[in-house]
Amino acid sequence: MKIYRYQHPFHLECGDTLPEIELGYTTYGRLNPEGDNVVWICHALTANSDPVEWWPGLVGEGKLYDPEDSFIVCANMLGSCYGSTNPDSIDKATGTRYGEDFPLITVRDIVKALVLLRIHLGIKSIHIATGGSMGGQQALEWAIMEPDVIKHLIVIGTNAKHSPWGVAFNETQRMALEADLSINEDSENAGMKGLEAARAIAMLSYRNYQAYHLTQMEDEEKLDDFKASSYQRYQGLKLRKRFRPLAYWTLSKAMDSHDLGRGRGGYRQALSIIRARTLVFGIESDYLFPVSEQKEISEHINDATLEIIDSPFGHDGFLIEYAQITHKVHEFLDQEKSLNTDKDSINGSKT
Amino acid sequence: MKIYRYQHPFHLECGDTLPEIELGYTTYGRLNPEGDNVVWICHALTANSDPVEWWPGLVGEGKLYDPEDSFIVCANMLGSCYGSTNPDSIDKATGTRYGEDFPLITVRDIVKALVLLRIHLGIKSIHIATGGSMGGQQALEWAIMEPDVIKHLIVIGTNAKHSPWGVAFNETQRMALEADLSINEDSENAGMKGLEAARAIAMLSYRNYQAYHLTQMEDEEKLDDFKASSYQRYQGLKLRKRFRPLAYWTLSKAMDSHDLGRGRGGYRQALSIIRARTLVFGIESDYLFPVSEQKEISEHINDATLEIIDSPFGHDGFLIEYAQITHKVHEFLDQEKSLNTDKDSINGSKT
Repeated sequence: MKIYRYQHPFHLECGDTLPEIELGYTTYGRLNPEGDNVVWICHALTANSDPVEWWPGLVGEGKLYDPEDSFIVCANMLGSCYGSTNPDSIDKATGTRYGEDFPLITVRDIVKALVLLRIHLGIKSIHIATGGSMGGQQALEWAIMEPDVIKHLIVIGTNAKHSPWGVAFNETQRMALEADLSINEDSENAGMKGLEAARAIAMLSYRNYQAYHLTQMEDEEKLDDFKASSYQRYQGLKLRKRFRPLAYWTLSKAMDSHDLGRGRGGYRQALSIIRARTLVFGIESDYLFPVSEQKEISEHINDATLEIIDSPFGHDGFLIEYAQITHKVHEFLDQEKSLNTDKDSINGSKT
Repeated sequence: MKIYRYQHPFHLECGDTLPEIELGYTTYGRLNPEGDNVVWICHALTANSDPVEWWPGLVGEGKLYDPEDSFIVCANMLGSCYGSTNPDSIDKATGTRYGEDFPLITVRDIVKALVLLRIHLGIKSIHIATGGSMGGQQALEWAIMEPDVIKHLIVIGTNAKHSPWGVAFNETQRMALEADLSINEDSENAGMKGLEAARAIAMLSYRNYQAYHLTQMEDEEKLDDFKASSYQRYQGLKLRKRFRPLAYWTLSKAMDSHDLGRGRGGYRQALSIIRARTLVFGIESDYLFPVSEQKEISEHINDATLEIIDSPFGHDGFLIEYAQITHKVHEFLDQEKSLNTDKDSINGSKT
């Protein structure tokens, strides 16, 4: 991971200003001389800038996104604790940790920071911008903010405006974070019980009845200590080891702020700004970002295809169903190649 | 509300013993001389012994369950804080509050206590046992424990064995309760932030995407302070004013323990013990107790009818869709009357 430091005031959508920002980022492969091989991956809520780690089925040698032919870039979101400025960072203005004074960050702020990094890296065109969930929210926002930069857009299990249902899930997680009264203390374990509970809540939105039925059903008769209980506790403990409570709080707020249509006459009109050729994936069993949301997205982008992933794992399908995603993305990209070949042969016959 | 005091050791399924128990209970109407007009209502997780309060559309003068002709009984669950022995009660053995030492209570323990109250009240036959959600779990358990006592069984949005999905939701609520480290303190406000968060989590299981979409959609463009957030906070505050954290913890554990089939060769075999004429309601949009669970129940009870309630409100439909419930219960009861009339006329023609 490298760190990009932007040593100027960074103005936020909420009106506040960060005196400077840092972004942790990771690249694989090299930018080709034509500058047309960039794959920019936007990550979801608790991931980091290394997609080989959290999207191993899609990114890496021999995979869909291969460093052999692509320049793969992923940056940690502004507000996240994997190398970027976040509530545990030191506020240059005061010399102390931001803590609970960290300002409200929006998805637009996060994308604005990505644009600064793009310019810093000398990238003028993004061949593919992609992401699932909150990563998809960023990719969509970016394709509207810079319609001429993003050539292809591939988003999975995401929406044009975060739903009341999604906001309710996030608010409930923040209530769990705040139930741990130590959250604003400046110590390593501050807020960690709350973070565990918040993660367990999130799991309920990522999976569904059927997924728990498939994986957590009991074999024996008992009164207590059920598998589903251990699973929730385990997921909480796992996140606790790798994340920070206030960064989690901040990013969940950013997700809630997501609305492509704010100040743009509504999200339908905003989607019509997108010029990228777009592939939108929905996951049939996704209960957090239901397929109706991806249908809405694909219907209002000029050149968009909708594909439905068949998965019992709900929203988590975007981190699991690699074969289906790979197959459909290849189909989507090959289709264009064959269109271009057709055009070439038509042009050829004309000359 | 009256209090029934059972001043003998009460042996629990987990192996522990409570030195004595109390149950808060409410009755409406009078037991008729034939003793065949009892409607026993079992309440759900956070309700109390007064169904006129929490089931106003079904219980009361002129309603489906009318004190004019029925003797309506409802008792607060063992472990709950509306008049029954619960973690905030004084342990007679030690003279101090049970607190976190309160033992594990199961749905069977709760029903065993209801049986003691039934005997105390001189009730030999229950014309209708009914309940939704955890109330339905108790009614089902009762119809198996005393198949000759329960004549009609009417359950709504419930299951034969609590699902891994339901357990996961409950465990997550307990994680939120425990994130509030004050939960085991002996003071009025102890554990209340955790209780608020737990309630907000529960709301997510009671409703669904569509219900939040219908009621919590924003009218204006904003970055923060969404309606869905206020709704979650408000629900938490509302429960905080009327419930206790450790009682909530205890009852959620009891719900997890629910398995009609434990020690009975599985729940299908257990359901076949039921002799009550049974009406099982499912709610189409119920995400916590999906319709597949009520289908399963109705298929394994000898004399059962399944009815599906059409509601956008998910599991909460059992507290909202009074008209549909009333209509179908009347149909169910009238059907029997007309069968009896038919039998009478057949018998009549034979004599």
